[in-house]
Amino acid sequence: MEHYYRDLREYLSVLKENDLLYEIDRPVKKETELTAISRLQYRGMPEDKRKGFIFNNVESVSGRKYDIPVATGIYASSLRMYALGVKAEPTRESIVGKWEKAQLSPVKTRMVESARVQDIVIKGDDLDKDGKGLDSLPIPVELPGFSGQIRTSTQIITRDPETGIRNVGNYSAHLFGKRKMMWEINRGNQGIIHWNKWKKLGKPMPAAIVVGGPPSYFFVGAAKIPYGVDEFDIAGGFAGEPVDMVKCKTVDMEAPANADIIIEGLISTEYMEPGNAFGEYTGYMATDVWLRPVIDVTAVTMRKDPVFVHIMSQFPPSESSKVRQVSSENVYLKFLKYDAKVPGIIDVAWHEMSQAQWCVIKIKKQNKSHPWQVLNMAAAYDLRWGKFFIVVDDDIDIRSMDAVIWALGWRVQPARDVRIFSGKMPGLDPSAYSPGASHEEKEFPGGVGSSGILIDATIKYPYPPTSLPRKEYMENALKIWKELKLPELNLVEPWYGYELGYWPDEFRKDAEDIVSGNVYKIGERLGKLRQKV
Amino acid sequence: MEHYYRDLREYLSVLKENDLLYEIDRPVKKETELTAISRLQYRGMPEDKRKGFIFNNVESVSGRKYDIPVATGIYASSLRMYALGVKAEPTRESIVGKWEKAQLSPVKTRMVESARVQDIVIKGDDLDKDGKGLDSLPIPVELPGFSGQIRTSTQIITRDPETGIRNVGNYSAHLFGKRKMMWEINRGNQGIIHWNKWKKLGKPMPAAIVVGGPPSYFFVGAAKIPYGVDEFDIAGGFAGEPVDMVKCKTVDMEAPANADIIIEGLISTEYMEPGNAFGEYTGYMATDVWLRPVIDVTAVTMRKDPVFVHIMSQFPPSESSKVRQVSSENVYLKFLKYDAKVPGIIDVAWHEMSQAQWCVIKIKKQNKSHPWQVLNMAAAYDLRWGKFFIVVDDDIDIRSMDAVIWALGWRVQPARDVRIFSGKMPGLDPSAYSPGASHEEKEFPGGVGSSGILIDATIKYPYPPTSLPRKEYMENALKIWKELKLPELNLVEPWYGYELGYWPDEFRKDAEDIVSGNVYKIGERLGKLRQKV
Repeated sequence: MEHYYRDLREYLSVLKENDLLYEIDRPVKKETELTAISRLQYRGMPEDKRKGFIFNNVESVSGRKYDIPVATGIYASSLRMYALGVKAEPTRESIVGKWEKAQLSPVKTRMVESARVQDIVIKGDDLDKDGKGLDSLPIPVELPGFSGQIRTSTQIITRDPETGIRNVGNYSAHLFGKRKMMWEINRGNQGIIHWNKWKKLGKPMPAAIVVGGPPSYFFVGAAKIPYGVDEFDIAGGFAGEPVDMVKCKTVDMEAPANADIIIEGLISTEYMEPGNAFGEYTGYMATDVWLRPVIDVTAVTMRKDPVFVHIMSQFPPSESSKVRQVSSENVYLKFLKYDAKVPGIIDVAWHEMSQAQWCVIKIKKQNKSHPWQVLNMAAAYDLRWGKFFIVVDDDIDIRSMDAVIWALGWRVQPARDVRIFSGKMPGLDPSAYSPGASHEEKEFPGGVGSSGILIDATIKYPYPPTSLPRKEYMENALKIWKELKLPELNLVEPWYGYELGYWPDEFRKDAEDIVSGNVYKIGERLGKLRQKV
Repeated sequence: MEHYYRDLREYLSVLKENDLLYEIDRPVKKETELTAISRLQYRGMPEDKRKGFIFNNVESVSGRKYDIPVATGIYASSLRMYALGVKAEPTRESIVGKWEKAQLSPVKTRMVESARVQDIVIKGDDLDKDGKGLDSLPIPVELPGFSGQIRTSTQIITRDPETGIRNVGNYSAHLFGKRKMMWEINRGNQGIIHWNKWKKLGKPMPAAIVVGGPPSYFFVGAAKIPYGVDEFDIAGGFAGEPVDMVKCKTVDMEAPANADIIIEGLISTEYMEPGNAFGEYTGYMATDVWLRPVIDVTAVTMRKDPVFVHIMSQFPPSESSKVRQVSSENVYLKFLKYDAKVPGIIDVAWHEMSQAQWCVIKIKKQNKSHPWQVLNMAAAYDLRWGKFFIVVDDDIDIRSMDAVIWALGWRVQPARDVRIFSGKMPGLDPSAYSPGASHEEKEFPGGVGSSGILIDATIKYPYPPTSLPRKEYMENALKIWKELKLPELNLVEPWYGYELGYWPDEFRKDAEDIVSGNVYKIGERLGKLRQKV
C-alpha cells in the first residue's frame, strides 16, 4: 500500500505536482499583506479553482526579515485538496470511506527515540533572545485592522492526568510575549476537562503545540471526536500506520515526530489573563475578554528547515470551514450509524457557510417517527453545534442547496413538521447574547440556553411522481442531444421523473395513451364524467 | 426611444443575434422527444449557458407532420433572456427599474381594426376537420410517461361582467377534443371571481387564449398583479406604448393583435369535467381530479406564419420558475414599498427552486419591531404563496444562498426569532394533504389551512465586526494580487471586514498596535490584568 505523507514536505511536493500551490517570492509583510492576499481567493474564486500559498519572503512592517517561510491554505482550500490530504479520490464517497476506516480502525501511536522536529531546541534563557524561539516565527496578523493579536491556530496536545489518555484539539494559542501565550479554550471543549483535573491536583498542565506536519493532524484535531479517544490514533487510522511520537524536551508530554515546529509549555492552573479581539469562524470578531489560562512556554523545537503553517480561518468559506464541514459530516455520520445505531442513515451534510449551524441528514425513512429519532439524536450529540437540523428523504441531494430548498418548500408543513428546542450552549454564536453581556449569560443565556430548530422535510404520505419526463424518454433525449452536438451537459439529480408512492392506474393509462397520440380518447373518457355545476 | 418588440418574430431575431436560440431542423416527435430534449438543458446546464429552442420539423408518433414550428424556452430560460424580454440590462437593478416603471406607470391598451393574428380564421364546422383549428397545433406532451394530457400553458383573458375590467392569467387550457378544452383554475386565482359572476348571470364566460407574442404578455400574466388591474396595461407600461388589441371574431372579448395564435371560446358555467394528471411547478405531478369548467372553442385565429410557443414549466428550474421568481420579486417589492408603504424595504428575493415558498426580504432595519411588520405584511399579501419568509439586514446578498445561510446561522435564535402561522390555502402544495384527501380538505386542510414560518434573521443588538481584513488592507492585497498576475477574481460580498455597531476602543487600539508589529506591547497590557484563578 502506498504510504501516507511522512511530513509536510512530502505533502507540499504532491500539491506542486498537482498545480495546487502558489509560490510567492515577492517580499510580503506579515502584519498587513500576507493574509489579505490569500483571503482574496476565498472571496473571489470558486472552490474548485482554489490553491495553497507559500510565501518565501516574509518580512515585518518593522523591516525585519524572517528565515522561515509561511504556508497557508495548503490543507483544505477545496474538497479536492482535502481529498489529497487523506489520500482519497475527490468524491464524497471516497472521503467517507477514509473517515469510516480511520474511526472504526484507529491505529495506536508509536514512540520513537529521536525526531527531526527536535533538530533545533531553544529553551531556557535562549527563549528571551530576539529572533529565537517564538520570536523567530513569522506569525501573520489574520485580519489587519481588526485582529488584536497573533496566534498559532493549530493542535494543542494535553493529557488526562487520571487516565493518561491524550486529547488533541484545534485550539489556538495566542502569542503575547517571548515566553507567554494564552490558551483560547471554550468551556464546552474537551481540553477543559483535562485542565480542571490538573487544577484539582494543584499542578500546571503540560502541553505541546503542534505547527505544521501532514494534513491528518489538522483534520483530526478539528473533528468532534468523543472524549477519551486520542486523535492521533485516528490520524494513524487514516495513514494505516502509527503516528510516530517523541518525548518532549522540557515537559512530560509527547509530540508528533514529523511536525515542523513544537512549542512546549505548561498551562497555568493558577493564573489567567483576559483576552482581546480575534476573528472567528462565525464570520464575526470574537470580543469576549473572559479569562484565559496562561501558557508558560518552556521550549520551542523545530526542524532545520521548518515551514510555519498558517490556517486560513475566520470568515467562511475558508480552510477551517472546509475542515470543520468534512470532519463534522463524518463524525456525525459515524455517530448516528455506528454508535447510536439509528437505522436508515445514508449521509450527513453540514453547510460550509454556517458551519456548525445547518445540518442536513439524508435517510431511508423507516416509519413516521424515524425522522424525529434522527433529528433528536443529531441535536443531542454536541452541546453547542447545530442550530438548523433538517432530515430529508433519500432522493434529495443534501449537498445541493437547490435540492434542499426544494424539499423544504414542498415537503414541510411548519405547524406539523418544525420543532424549536432550547438548552444549547451558544459558544461563539453572537445571536445568543449581546456582546456586553456577562460571562455567565454568555455561557447559558437567560437560564434556558440558546435554541435550535428541527425540521422533518421527508414526505409524510405517498406523493405523486416528480414532474419530469420518465427515465426512458430522458435517456432517448440524451442520445438526440449528443447526435445534434449540443453543448456538453453536467446533469444534476433528479434529471428524470420517478414515482413516490401515489400513481393510480387511470393516470398510468392516460400517460400511455398520450405518448401514443390518443388525446381525444382521453377526452372521451373525461367527457363521460361530465357534470352539471 | 427604441420601441418594444412588436411581435414574436422581432423578439426571435434578437435571440438569434445574441446566439440564444438553438434551431433544430431534425424531425422531432412531439409526444416523446420534444420536451425531453429541451428539458435536458435545465437539469444539465448552468443558467447563464441556457438558450431557447425552435423545432422546425415537428411530427407525431403517428407519423403526421406539422406545418407550425414549436418554440420553447425562448422567454425566460435565464435571467439574461428575461432581461432581453423586457429590454433591460441583465442586472437585478435594471429589471427592477423596468418593473417599477411598468407597475407605477401602466399604459392603457389601444383598439385596432385589423390584426395579423386574424390572417387565418377557423370557426364553425371547420373546427371539426382533421388538421384544422386546434388539431393543426403541434402541442407537445410535457412529461412523456407521466402527463395525461396536452395543453397551452399561456394567457387566458376574461372579463369582470360588472366592471368590464379584463384579467389576464397564466392558466392552462387542457386540450381534449377538437372543440373542447378545460380550464385549469385554482379556487384562489382571480379568474374564478369572474367565472362566479358570469355563473350568477346564467351565462357562459367569453375567453381568449393567447399563444405566442412578445415576452411581456407572458411575464405580466405570471405575476401576482392585484385584482382589478388589466395586465395588458402593465405590459404597455413595459413597452412604453399601448398594447394593440383587436375584437375577437366569435366572442365578446379582445385579444392582442400581435399574438401568434388566439383560441376563442366560451367557458361553460353550466358543465364541468374532472381533470387528470399533469406536471406542476412544485416539482410534482398534480393529480387532483376536481371538476374543471369546460371551454367550448368557437374559433382559432392565427397569423399566416405562426409559431406555437410552449412554455418550459414543471420541475424547477424552468422557464416558468424564472418568470414566477422575477415577477414575484417585483410584485412583492412594489407592494411592500409603494402600497403598504413599509419603510426600509430594499429588495425581495424568491428562491427559484421552491418558487412560491422561500422569500428573503432585505431591509434597512428601523427598529426592533420593523422586521415583524415586514414579515407579517409579506405573509399577508397572497393567500397561497409563501412558506418561508426571512428578513435580513442590508449587508446580506439575498440572492446568494451562502449569504442567507450565513445570516440564518448566526443572526437567528429560533426560540426568539421564529414564528409559525397557519391559515393559508395550500394550493398545489403536496405537503399539506394526502393525495387521496377530499377536495374540501385540500382547499383548507384540517380546518386550519396550511402553515408558514416567519424568521427574523436581522441582528438584534450591536454585533462585533465581520471577521475579514479591513477594506484598506484588502484593496492593497488586490493590487499585489494583480501585480503577481494571479488568476482573475470574481469577488462576492462581503469581501472586506466592516463594523456592525460593537467595537470598543481597546480593541480598536490593539488592532492598530498589531499592524504596527507591537504584539509584546499588547501582551504587557493584558499582563497587568492577570488574575489568580
